[in-house]
Amino acid sequence: MRMVDLIIKKREKFELTEEEIKFIIDGYVKNEIPDYQMSSFLMAVLFNGMTENEQYLLTKTMLESGEQIDLSSIEGIKVDKHSTGGVGDKTSLVVAPLAAAYGIKMAKMSGRGLGHTGGTLDKLESIPGFTIEVDSEHFFKQVNEIGLAIIGQTADITPADKKLYALRDVTGTIESIPLIASSIMSKKLASGANHIVLDVKVGAGAFMKDVESATKLAEAMVKIGKLANRETVATLTDMSQPLGCAVGNSLEVIEAIETLKGKGPEDFTNLCIELTAEILLIAGIAKDIEDAKALAVKAMHDGSGLEKLRQMIIHQGGDGNVVDDYSIFKEASEIVELTYDGQNNLYVESINALEIGQAAMILGAGRLTKEDVIDHSVGIVINKKVGDTLNNGDLIATIYSNGKNTEECVNKVLDAYLLTNEIVKKEPIVIKTVRG
Amino acid sequence: MRMVDLIIKKREKFELTEEEIKFIIDGYVKNEIPDYQMSSFLMAVLFNGMTENEQYLLTKTMLESGEQIDLSSIEGIKVDKHSTGGVGDKTSLVVAPLAAAYGIKMAKMSGRGLGHTGGTLDKLESIPGFTIEVDSEHFFKQVNEIGLAIIGQTADITPADKKLYALRDVTGTIESIPLIASSIMSKKLASGANHIVLDVKVGAGAFMKDVESATKLAEAMVKIGKLANRETVATLTDMSQPLGCAVGNSLEVIEAIETLKGKGPEDFTNLCIELTAEILLIAGIAKDIEDAKALAVKAMHDGSGLEKLRQMIIHQGGDGNVVDDYSIFKEASEIVELTYDGQNNLYVESINALEIGQAAMILGAGRLTKEDVIDHSVGIVINKKVGDTLNNGDLIATIYSNGKNTEECVNKVLDAYLLTNEIVKKEPIVIKTVRG
Repeated sequence: MRMVDLIIKKREKFELTEEEIKFIIDGYVKNEIPDYQMSSFLMAVLFNGMTENEQYLLTKTMLESGEQIDLSSIEGIKVDKHSTGGVGDKTSLVVAPLAAAYGIKMAKMSGRGLGHTGGTLDKLESIPGFTIEVDSEHFFKQVNEIGLAIIGQTADITPADKKLYALRDVTGTIESIPLIASSIMSKKLASGANHIVLDVKVGAGAFMKDVESATKLAEAMVKIGKLANRETVATLTDMSQPLGCAVGNSLEVIEAIETLKGKGPEDFTNLCIELTAEILLIAGIAKDIEDAKALAVKAMHDGSGLEKLRQMIIHQGGDGNVVDDYSIFKEASEIVELTYDGQNNLYVESINALEIGQAAMILGAGRLTKEDVIDHSVGIVINKKVGDTLNNGDLIATIYSNGKNTEECVNKVLDAYLLTNEIVKKEPIVIKTVRG
Repeated sequence: MRMVDLIIKKREKFELTEEEIKFIIDGYVKNEIPDYQMSSFLMAVLFNGMTENEQYLLTKTMLESGEQIDLSSIEGIKVDKHSTGGVGDKTSLVVAPLAAAYGIKMAKMSGRGLGHTGGTLDKLESIPGFTIEVDSEHFFKQVNEIGLAIIGQTADITPADKKLYALRDVTGTIESIPLIASSIMSKKLASGANHIVLDVKVGAGAFMKDVESATKLAEAMVKIGKLANRETVATLTDMSQPLGCAVGNSLEVIEAIETLKGKGPEDFTNLCIELTAEILLIAGIAKDIEDAKALAVKAMHDGSGLEKLRQMIIHQGGDGNVVDDYSIFKEASEIVELTYDGQNNLYVESINALEIGQAAMILGAGRLTKEDVIDHSVGIVINKKVGDTLNNGDLIATIYSNGKNTEECVNKVLDAYLLTNEIVKKEPIVIKTVRG
């Protein structure tokens, strides 16, 4: 078998066999296939796509290129939840405790990433004492005891995906749905859960800019899950503005806690209810989606979700009192309130989520390079969301800074807002759900 | 400027600017742009094509990456003739002398290549004493005196094209019309002639398999020539069977000499007349194509073309008597006549040119690797062409071998022939001509 022939085969729209996909991926991981052949292959995939079976085989081959987490020592139904990522996305901190409140096992291993704000691990590390460095034994024990754990990924899962992703990043081949789907699903399958609930973000602030491409991605991932015998559901959710109000690590943890108390922002609360409901449904806890949503709401209002979060914080070395006393968090030295100075009776038409994310990052809330150190206390709380009315003197946003780039941040936040004098309808956070 | 952004620009079908194309090509030649970015770019070009202006700018940038031949010391009208290559293509050996007979300056520098049979240089080297290693001074003097020279390329022309071609060869990105057109035209423009006549081969034995794609290639090259202020014409000619009858170096030289005597195979003779006519027309020697063809025929019948070939052979150290005495060529030790054994009144439907080329190569007529040494005396003469009748006992082909792979060659030749019991029409060799 010669790689050049397989590149031409894909270029000419023929379907690759399992043997051929294995030859390509294994050869690439072993450095037998050079980057320059892989990148022209990836570009051919970007143009010609992949069949469902090719996508599944690519996922399977990448999955098998590395370690796979064995969750068999955890009893019960194990569900994994994954988001394609967005600004202000602290969903895992609410959904995992709510699901755990119904006995579902949420054994989550996360990787760190680059981004506007830190990942879930960084957010949790804003809690004094909290550690994400937990060994397997402790991890399995904790999940068996309290139903949830969120720790750092130490296993070398899907090295093929890591190597491919780095190449795609510099060769203009990121934006391919089969490649994105197999990248995400190879990691999800490697994490060992029985069922997978995916949150596919759509909109200006997300990787998928429109519903059409997000639907294709969702369908591709659900199909891969099905072929791999893991029930998978994907929910498309709106990311045309930041999710909730808080953007920044400790600010987002506080918002998550508030949400577990039933006092979160409307859009974020609804999203958490919806995703929790999907988990309860896929796990067979609820008989239908309405029943499942009611259970999710109940766990917010009776405090059982919050109790799970508190238990997790304590099990992972953190101060459990944080759920009641936010002063335990390290606080920013400077708080700037941005008020609106202009015409009355305007409406917020849109809020550029990427701009808000950037604004938080320059304060120190995120990483541009792996070496950057995150400042957990800084960030932004937006006080006006899309559809809100704006009158002179209204508070738009609050900046929590430690003196780094405060002014630039203020300007970015103001730039992010687009106003109009016509009424703007608030769109629901969940756009649609794709089931297997 | 970042290469990844330019890859994405091309992927998304935007037109690249001169500055961007220069950045890509110059960066690649200087090793500042890695192979893996260039190959995904090339695949994006293969899918999305290039505008006429992009093709011209790519050609120009590759041209400027290396030396350019200055033919200003040669007086008169300088025309270059180029063929995209095919089995049995010895056209230059006839066309250049015929054109030179009318005072046109044919200053041809060729590169060696890999292939079924040798290139023009290898064919000429089958003439005892003939050298292609001629210095510039001698080259210019010879062309001024007798009107033609065919020598080896020593200048480092279009290094960008060389590097790109090597990458395309292993990354499935050969088959792109803009890339083929700019590769050929950058070399032609570097060779310094005023006018360019292109022979674009079409058919199973050629790189372009159908008239549609060959037309596109022809149009692309003519357009590039126009934008570069070099009048260019491209003739599409049939390569669905070997050209003429001889395939193999000295055998092809002999066929070329016979053709200059007016005794060549019909298809090859017609092609040489047609291409010579295009040269005479583009050079302004003839008033129209019919007039130009008549002049080409005249130079065959009055011996003036043959005389030019004889002069060139002598000027380049060869034995000029070879044009009258073929026994001067080194002869093959074994001559095998392949006769037809089967039903009477069948017709030759097709002859697989690539198969015939392969058959000649395994005898030693061509090179598979750069290091292979060519045996100038071996080859094949096909005695039946498409449309010919076949009766039991008829001579099909004659194999000239020095004992290497003779039997395999015989089998390949027989395999190349497809017979039918229905009359097969002989198609004209020239399909169409694309002018600027």
